[in-house]
Amino acid sequence: LLTPAELERVRVVLVATRNPLNIGAAARAMSNFGFQRLHVVNPYQPAFREARSAVGASAVLEGAVKYKTVAEAVADCTLVVGTTAVRRRNLQHVVRRLEDGARLIRKRLASNRVAILFGSEKSGLSNEDLSHCHWLMRIPTSEQNISMNLGQAVAVCLYELIRDVRAPRAPEKLAPATAAEVERITNMLLEALGASGYIGLRRVADVEQRMRRLVRRLNLPARDAVLWLGILRQIVWKMHSGRAPKE
Amino acid sequence: LLTPAELERVRVVLVATRNPLNIGAAARAMSNFGFQRLHVVNPYQPAFREARSAVGASAVLEGAVKYKTVAEAVADCTLVVGTTAVRRRNLQHVVRRLEDGARLIRKRLASNRVAILFGSEKSGLSNEDLSHCHWLMRIPTSEQNISMNLGQAVAVCLYELIRDVRAPRAPEKLAPATAAEVERITNMLLEALGASGYIGLRRVADVEQRMRRLVRRLNLPARDAVLWLGILRQIVWKMHSGRAPKE
Repeated sequence: LLTPAELERVRVVLVATRNPLNIGAAARAMSNFGFQRLHVVNPYQPAFREARSAVGASAVLEGAVKYKTVAEAVADCTLVVGTTAVRRRNLQHVVRRLEDGARLIRKRLASNRVAILFGSEKSGLSNEDLSHCHWLMRIPTSEQNISMNLGQAVAVCLYELIRDVRAPRAPEKLAPATAAEVERITNMLLEALGASGYIGLRRVADVEQRMRRLVRRLNLPARDAVLWLGILRQIVWKMHSGRAPKE
Repeated sequence: LLTPAELERVRVVLVATRNPLNIGAAARAMSNFGFQRLHVVNPYQPAFREARSAVGASAVLEGAVKYKTVAEAVADCTLVVGTTAVRRRNLQHVVRRLEDGARLIRKRLASNRVAILFGSEKSGLSNEDLSHCHWLMRIPTSEQNISMNLGQAVAVCLYELIRDVRAPRAPEKLAPATAAEVERITNMLLEALGASGYIGLRRVADVEQRMRRLVRRLNLPARDAVLWLGILRQIVWKMHSGRAPKE
């Protein structure tokens, strides 16, 4: 998990972007994942700051800095990473899968600024742009459709940077029912089975143990145990034609 | 990494989507990551199949199936997962971070079909929609801007499903230079230092070892070693005013 200082050290650099809606979408993804620094190099539409796609990201878009060259946009970084859809663009650069590249970027962010470059929608980064990069990173897309939408590519790359790489955490579990609660349900179920004739119809010697196991396999949370007990009690009551159930 | 059969077992279910461009963007992300089955429940615009945003994903969009209810759209699945931006929507569902949820989904996909539900752009999934879900999953967005664009959210969730969870792979490395090549460069550099007067100016006893270490710290790939040797040779040649360098 990146610290606020590390998030601040990332520069998302959009080079020669054609559609201002994509700049807005990139800003939105940055804001969603806590990044702030957007650098824009030679956008096709100078009025990109009005992009309506930057929902909740007006601060990122207003703080965006416009540059004329890639060199200026990445000047304060010690690592410059280009993104590419192509598996092996040419022999000029090492290409890493996003999962591996992000690991190296996270390490560098501990004390240095890192630029991540995204090229234009049509043609990606030019060879001139790429020559400023230390290495390239590619999102592991399917061979059948390697080219992602720009805003989606930015979202996926930034997500990979902030995703939790530690061991899985336990989910926010619902409190489980106690054995006493589960046993009350079992007993009420057995009474319902008797009252309905289900037990009478199918004579099984170990029916009680079978039902006990059946109920335990439900792994009921405490909250639901209360509900089920009430439901069964009402059903038993109805089958006894209004007489109160034993329990 | 998901197998083709596992990819086919995922149903991306878009419920009450307002903007057909977002359906197209979801289809594009599905295609980028190798997923095929798109289920659309009550889209706001029935003509969603014409969405121009589905670049390279016409097969996914044309194969999309339209349903009137969530129940029908998820009928063939054994696990139904809802997505939410909210951390703890209510007490009705377990909410897992995407990293953890995706792990469970991958396991289930080994032999079962799984539906992943995405709600409308404005309000997300309704409580009625959520009641069809076994649990919920949230993308770990920043508190300051929790709500993602629909197409970007789909892209991030699907990426997390297909990302490589194994140990890091070595990057496609450039072949490193041999010790002999590095030593030739060192010698040519020393000759250049002598010819330029750099060594003469700064008398350092262990200059040769210092330079040898300096050159080795460059970790030159074989390809670049050839280039550097040529550059140095030319410089030495020029400094010797046309006389060939020793080497």
